[in-house]
Amino acid sequence: MDVIQLFKYLINSKSETPDDGGILNFVEDYLEGFKAVRIDVEDVKNLFIYKKFGDGEHLCFAGHVDVVPAGDGWDTNPYEAVEKDGFIYGRGTQDMKSGVAAFTQAVKEAKNFQGTLSLILTSDEEGEATAGTVKALEYLQQHNMLPDACVVAEPTCEDKFGDAIKVGRRGSINGYLTVKGKQGHAAYPEKAINPIHQIAQVLGDMAGVDLDEGDEFFAPSKFVITDIRSGMQVTNVTPNELQMMFNVRNNTKTTQKEVREFVAKHLQGLDYELRLTQGSYPFKTDTDTKLVKKIDEAIKQVTCKEPKHSTAGGTSDARFIAPLGVDVIEFGVRNDTIHSTNERTTKKEVEDLYRVFSRLIENWNK
Amino acid sequence: MDVIQLFKYLINSKSETPDDGGILNFVEDYLEGFKAVRIDVEDVKNLFIYKKFGDGEHLCFAGHVDVVPAGDGWDTNPYEAVEKDGFIYGRGTQDMKSGVAAFTQAVKEAKNFQGTLSLILTSDEEGEATAGTVKALEYLQQHNMLPDACVVAEPTCEDKFGDAIKVGRRGSINGYLTVKGKQGHAAYPEKAINPIHQIAQVLGDMAGVDLDEGDEFFAPSKFVITDIRSGMQVTNVTPNELQMMFNVRNNTKTTQKEVREFVAKHLQGLDYELRLTQGSYPFKTDTDTKLVKKIDEAIKQVTCKEPKHSTAGGTSDARFIAPLGVDVIEFGVRNDTIHSTNERTTKKEVEDLYRVFSRLIENWNK
Repeated sequence: MDVIQLFKYLINSKSETPDDGGILNFVEDYLEGFKAVRIDVEDVKNLFIYKKFGDGEHLCFAGHVDVVPAGDGWDTNPYEAVEKDGFIYGRGTQDMKSGVAAFTQAVKEAKNFQGTLSLILTSDEEGEATAGTVKALEYLQQHNMLPDACVVAEPTCEDKFGDAIKVGRRGSINGYLTVKGKQGHAAYPEKAINPIHQIAQVLGDMAGVDLDEGDEFFAPSKFVITDIRSGMQVTNVTPNELQMMFNVRNNTKTTQKEVREFVAKHLQGLDYELRLTQGSYPFKTDTDTKLVKKIDEAIKQVTCKEPKHSTAGGTSDARFIAPLGVDVIEFGVRNDTIHSTNERTTKKEVEDLYRVFSRLIENWNK
Repeated sequence: MDVIQLFKYLINSKSETPDDGGILNFVEDYLEGFKAVRIDVEDVKNLFIYKKFGDGEHLCFAGHVDVVPAGDGWDTNPYEAVEKDGFIYGRGTQDMKSGVAAFTQAVKEAKNFQGTLSLILTSDEEGEATAGTVKALEYLQQHNMLPDACVVAEPTCEDKFGDAIKVGRRGSINGYLTVKGKQGHAAYPEKAINPIHQIAQVLGDMAGVDLDEGDEFFAPSKFVITDIRSGMQVTNVTPNELQMMFNVRNNTKTTQKEVREFVAKHLQGLDYELRLTQGSYPFKTDTDTKLVKKIDEAIKQVTCKEPKHSTAGGTSDARFIAPLGVDVIEFGVRNDTIHSTNERTTKKEVEDLYRVFSRLIENWNK
């Protein structure tokens, strides 16, 4: 099987979250000579598969084999790889069976690697992601097998293949604010403490405000209000309490501490309670790490491009890997049709992605 | 029967809204020689009773015979007039059977009045007030019998009997505002139109703001927000719509037009809908009208006080009478125990109130 045959095989294996479509068993067989560890959690299938070629660093490729549901309106069968005009159509062609095919083929064909090569595969990334990569990483931690560097093969390219890698992602802080007042009659506002009036005085200085300036990689961490509610849906009583929810997609300059201080500064003198939760932590892999240098080099060799180092976009399983001290980047095909009808990628991108990963492995110890 | 006996009779007649406790039938009999018109509406009893002494102005006394429920915790039976230490205890002693007793007795004893004297009595003031005085007034309008001047005998005095009359009341405008945005993901605020962020920029200039300066009689008309709600109670989606309710207790300087303009000024450029309703209209009886001069004079003769001309406080049936072009004032006993347990008034206040109303009638044509 070459990488395109492997890719088509993966597309033809219907694997809507948390179904793996039998892919993990297939990969176990396909990577002959590799050691496989299954970390399945209820319906979710997880595979850690590795081969120690020799002493040296542990380079890992991570990805998900599950896809979001196809939905209606496709021109072709979304669970059949259909080649047409240089494109291959099917659910998961971009997100991210192209990536899985490319690194699986590259790892299978690796020779004389000085260290350990491995894959982490899950069938729970598009869902809750609570029983997927997280559980595989717990296993690796417990068994002291965390990799030194990891490539998540999510689709990262924008206009042209090779134009962007992700070297980080913003985190997400959720805020739940309660401002306490004193109920009263609308006719006698002076006898009440109206929490809507109180917050009205400061809301303009909070809503949509940047908590830092960002940097060359990250956009500023912005205070985004997602919900506000206060009152009894009547016009003659003023409320005793106001509740607000907000979200901050935070870069590495802003933590819960800064968010708490920002709220405290503006709500000074008010009676309030604030609860913060962390959806995910931001991460940033330094540009001068070996991993970034080596992937840049491999991309340049294959595409003659110098990829942009981006941190934009939503979350991926990289958010679970980076906090464990593993260098992580993301690189994959273009992402213009992910989660859409008629999702497609070009055959050439899949081949080139396989070449980039092969070069990365080949160059790693040079 | 003297005024105190009449007063006690009314207290002993239990008349929780809309029950009149038989009082209206009693008054019909008590005012011998007067013409009675009953304008009952379902459970609500309304009486218009009048006597044309001669040509001349029509002076009317209005009031409600219904009371709010007594509730628990009374030291005496709330539906039995109990005299103790100069006070008379019972539900309705202040609000407003003292007033009804005083004007009924004064009107009964009136002689040689140059014009028409009348009473409007209802058993629906403490309730919805939709089947009470409003219905009696409709009848009077239809029959061209609206009075020239009207005294509503609600309890108006504050510290001492005779210290205050009401020459007006604020109105009430209710506002229902919808600000429309465009839903979006919290991670990409630039792609959404967040109505919370939009209103945040102007809320500080609206909440609790005075729409006019008021005047010597009225407090300013204040913009009071009573409800705000927007969002789906999640932290990852920004809302497509925000809803707000507000109330303006308006004086005669501010109407719906000014409220609409105030909102328009601040929400310029936003996509919003505003609905206004009028709970009640403000009214103000000029200080130099005959009614105000004559009641002031009568109060001074009885109490040696010059009453304050107030517009403070909640609503009364005067709000229905004034818009019809009738001069209206309110005057009654002190109001420190209205709607409370152990409601009470002094015997002396009831006697003095009767004297004030008698003087008003006596002096009217002088």
